[in-house]
Parts: sequence; C-alpha cells; structure tokens
Amino acid sequence: MTDPVASVATSARPLIEIWRGGLLEGQHLGHAVIWGPGGIEAAWGDPDAVIFPRSSCKMIQALPLVESGAADAAGLTPAQLALACASHQGAGLHVSAVSRWLGDLGLAEPDLRCGAHMPKDPAEDLRLRTSGDSPCQIHNNCSGKHAGFLTWTRHAGAGPDYTEIDHPLQRAIRAATEEVTGADIAGWGIDGCSAPNFATTVAGLARAMAAFAAANPTGGARDRAMARLARAMATHPEMVAGEGRACTTLMRAMGGRVAIKTGAEAVFVAILPEQKRGIALKIVDGGTRASEAAIVALLIRLGALDARDPAVAPYLGAQRNWRGLVTGEIRTAPGFA
Amino acid sequence: MTDPVASVATSARPLIEIWRGGLLEGQHLGHAVIWGPGGIEAAWGDPDAVIFPRSSCKMIQALPLVESGAADAAGLTPAQLALACASHQGAGLHVSAVSRWLGDLGLAEPDLRCGAHMPKDPAEDLRLRTSGDSPCQIHNNCSGKHAGFLTWTRHAGAGPDYTEIDHPLQRAIRAATEEVTGADIAGWGIDGCSAPNFATTVAGLARAMAAFAAANPTGGARDRAMARLARAMATHPEMVAGEGRACTTLMRAMGGRVAIKTGAEAVFVAILPEQKRGIALKIVDGGTRASEAAIVALLIRLGALDARDPAVAPYLGAQRNWRGLVTGEIRTAPGFA
Repeated sequence: MTDPVASVATSARPLIEIWRGGLLEGQHLGHAVIWGPGGIEAAWGDPDAVIFPRSSCKMIQALPLVESGAADAAGLTPAQLALACASHQGAGLHVSAVSRWLGDLGLAEPDLRCGAHMPKDPAEDLRLRTSGDSPCQIHNNCSGKHAGFLTWTRHAGAGPDYTEIDHPLQRAIRAATEEVTGADIAGWGIDGCSAPNFATTVAGLARAMAAFAAANPTGGARDRAMARLARAMATHPEMVAGEGRACTTLMRAMGGRVAIKTGAEAVFVAILPEQKRGIALKIVDGGTRASEAAIVALLIRLGALDARDPAVAPYLGAQRNWRGLVTGEIRTAPGFA
Repeated sequence: MTDPVASVATSARPLIEIWRGGLLEGQHLGHAVIWGPGGIEAAWGDPDAVIFPRSSCKMIQALPLVESGAADAAGLTPAQLALACASHQGAGLHVSAVSRWLGDLGLAEPDLRCGAHMPKDPAEDLRLRTSGDSPCQIHNNCSGKHAGFLTWTRHAGAGPDYTEIDHPLQRAIRAATEEVTGADIAGWGIDGCSAPNFATTVAGLARAMAAFAAANPTGGARDRAMARLARAMATHPEMVAGEGRACTTLMRAMGGRVAIKTGAEAVFVAILPEQKRGIALKIVDGGTRASEAAIVALLIRLGALDARDPAVAPYLGAQRNWRGLVTGEIRTAPGFA
C-alpha cells in the first residue's frame, strides 16, 4: 500500500458490462475478493485497493453495541440488531421501530446526529408529501445504526456527540474495524449520515466478512456478537433495506442462510456462514447497478443463489425498455465470477 | 476502429474523481472531444471510441423534421422544436404542450410508440400518485421527440410504425447521422423509448455538434435546420429538460448562447455557435454525475460558463451531507479540462 490515495483506481479490472444492439455500451471496473477459511480464495482487481466501506460495514460498527452488553441491557431484539446494520428505506415499519427504540431509551429524534432526508419508501414518501410534513432524522436510512450508537453511548455513559471522531464509541468502532480487517485503518472520512467511516482495503473487508461467517455462536464475546449480528441480518431482510431493494430481495431468495449489505459508492459485502466465507467488492465508479450485478454473480458462483431465481433477473441478464422490448444486457466481464 | 465492440472501453482515461476524507473514493473514465472549425482541438481518451449517443443526438434526429418542411407545414414554434430535442421531465408544461401538439396533428396518445413511465417532475408525479392515474406515453421523457417523429411521418404520408429500423423516417435519420458525423454508423440499438439509436464515435458526435454550431441560419436547408434547432434549444431551456435538471439550469446560466444535451449512459454534448465549436463526451460507466461534471468543466474551459456561477456548484466542487457537513469533493482528474 505505497500509494493509498490513488489505489482505489489502480489495477481495477472490468467486472460488469452493459450491452446494447450487439455493442458494448458501458463498462464498470472494480475489485472483488472472496475470503475463505484459508485466506483469499479468489480475487479480481487489486485486493489491497483502499476503499471506504460506507454502509457495508454497519455490522462492524454494531460490534461495540453487542460486545459491550449494551444491546442486552436494552433488551434489543434480533429485528433491532438487523436495523442497527441497515440502510433502510424509511418505510412505516422502519420509522415506527426506530421511534419506539428511541422512546425505550428515554430519547427522541433530536438526539440523533444523522440528518433528515426523504425516505425511499414510496408510501411513506407519498404520506409526507401529501400531508406537507417534512422528513425527520428517523427517516434517514442510517437511523437504525444511530439508534444503536445511542444505545451504546447511553450504556457507556458517554457524551451526546457520538459521531465525533474522538468519541469513545468511534474509538471502539475504529479498534473493532482494525481487529476484524486485520489491518490499521487507511484513513477516515465523514459519511452521508455524519458518522466517521474508516477506510480499509477490499481484502480487509472480505476478511472481516469471513470472520463474521466463521464466528462461533457460543464462543467469546466477539464471536458471539458477530454470529448474532449476521444471523439477525440474514433472518430480518425486511429490516436491512426494504421492499424491492437488492439486500432484502436477495437475502429472502437465500432463505436466511446469507447476510449481504450494500454501501454507498458501489460497495457490496456478503457473509456466508455455511461456507465460512466472506465477500467484499467495490465498483470504482460508484455505480450501484454494477455492485448489485457483481454480488449476484459471486453469490451464484458460490452456490448461495440460484441463477434461475426470479430475484436474480433485475440484476443480471436481459434489460427491457418501457414497452417491454429487450434493449440489451447486463453481464459479467470475461474472466469475472 | 479495428474493434468497435470493445472500443467504448479501450483507452478511456480518468475524467472525473470523487474524493472523501483526503482519499480518492471513486473515479470515472471516459472520452471527450472538442471540435472546432479546424477539426479536433482537444481530446481526452479515444476520439474513435464507439458510443451510443442516446438522447444526446435528438437534434440530429430532428433534422428530417425541419429540413423536409414538415415542421413549417405544421406551424411548429421554437418551443416545439426544443421539445422535439428534449428529454423532458413530464411537468405540466411538457405534458400540455405535447398533448396540444398531437391534437393539432389530429392524433392522440396511442399513436405514440415511446411507452409510458412516471414523470420525474415532482408535482406531476404527486398529481398522478394522489389521483391514482397511471402515467401515459405523453409523460415519457421522449414524447416531444416522438411528436416530432409523428409530424414528419404524417407530412411524408408514411406508415404508423415510425420506430421500425426500415421506416422511411429512421432511414432519413440514419442518413442525416452519417452526414453530420462524417462517418458510417457503427451499429444500432433500441433506445429506452423504442426508437433506433445509431452508434457513432465520440469524435463523430463532436463533429456533428460543431456543424450545428457553425451552421449558417440563412444557408441551405441543412444549415438552416441546424441553426434553428440549436437556437430553439438554447433559448427554451425549460422545454429541453425541466426545473432542477442540468440541461435547463446550465443553458439558463449561459443565457441562450449555448445548447447542451444529455443522453442516457452518461453522454453529454454542447453546441457553441459563437465559437463554432462542438463538444461530445461519454463516461464509460454511465454515471450521470460524471458526465455533468465533465461538460461543466469543458464549458468553463471554453469560457462559456463562469466557474463562479451558482449553477456550477452542484456539479463540481465540495459535496455536503444531510447535515450540511462537507464530506468530499467532485473534481476533474489531473490533465482533464
């Protein structure tokens, strides 16, 4: 890692192609790593590429919450743990769960530090627009993560500015990140939700996902926390994203056996406990359609997802226009997956 | 052009970078050409890269409409000519204009061949969703282009299936495309609106835009048609896209002196009559934020757009999150623009 600043783009290789009329119309470059019990099992691009995992690392950011005993002290359910790892779309389901959670802590919306944005859920979006209400911080796709942050902060008796880089919570998340990725962080930035996001390598992120996959549910505190969080995500797909979203749809298709998580700027990770394998990938241009296609291709490669499953169709294969005509295809680049 | 199939991706170079926390988080590769009176004046990537211009070539697709006399026979206004070159967002303004246009032709919505999709205009979207109405083909962002197609078809007495590749209209568009780009088409595909889209090179598209820029308003039929269409677009920016969209906002900022047009999969073109220059660019990954940033950078380079204009800020420079914190920056890659 001699040049971390430039390395996200160095040695990236074609992962996903966009075809139309028999011509290559577009191409997405990236990096992907499959990490198994023995280390890297397959890699495309540069495993040492430095990336911001963005929301794909929410299960790492939730480790202090579970390991510290804060989650149990607050009586958090698996659905709430899934919500702590979520980029939800602000549907009624998510909004009411976070509202109740904050209330149970004796806290309220202004205690959040994530900022407000319109929800992606069409029904909640319509409700807000027709009522003239503004979205609040609970609608933020990261509000479950922030409710988890507040749960830890309250349990630890720490100050309210939990998104500051030197807050004890962020120090704990940084330490957990370095431990599970097996490397010092490569820098940090401010995420869309105002929390710090710690840069790591694609291989480090895949190693972390493999650690979640291999975690012993009856082992030490770290193992138990990892196993609980991965299981919570895999078995509560509706909490992790929402109807029509890739994380929810694909986890449902895999029947609770695999946890997957997207992150902004086209990061995607997967935790496969039955195989004790983890996946991490990054599309350099930030194109979500490509990170979704790439994770689908790798999950099919590993036998976790059936290529014929209807859940796969939107992400790989023929693309149709508004009149239903086939206009082209999204496919994997030669040599990938 | 030894390998047209692969050439969109060959020799693409970094044009736009995404930064966060002092690290390069993302990168967009592409091709760009500035064509002036003497030919190529500047190029990045491969000028011979084969691309689908998609909606960026609507002014070329409108040439038969004007040259044939069909536009004048139907009494089309400059606003209607702008709409024929538009990817509009289905606001009331656009919907009512296309509806009236079809009515004036003695035609109606089912005569369109573009398919229906929800409009991007927030007010019209809300109106449809609260009334329970479905969007119709007039809401399609290409409905103005298709109204122009129908105007030509009616004038020529041609059959109703005007989106078929061997329809006289599409043959006329193909011939016009080859003439203004100076090259045989490199293939064709079906666009989102079901019309054929003819593949060409980035340099060919830039050459075509320079021809529009240099067109003599009192010259021959081709010149007059080009000058009318470019002027209609530049002076009716509200018709070409809509409120908040890059084409509309940036053309307004340039005060009617420049026509610009986006196309799906991150194509962008500009026609600069005062300089007799044309620009064409393509981002290989299809990322619109990058094609917008790149065209802004090139328009600033050519002095057509002021870097300090508030219209520039969303597309280049510091990026902020939901709480207003600066999280990073969109900037041009070293050596570009």
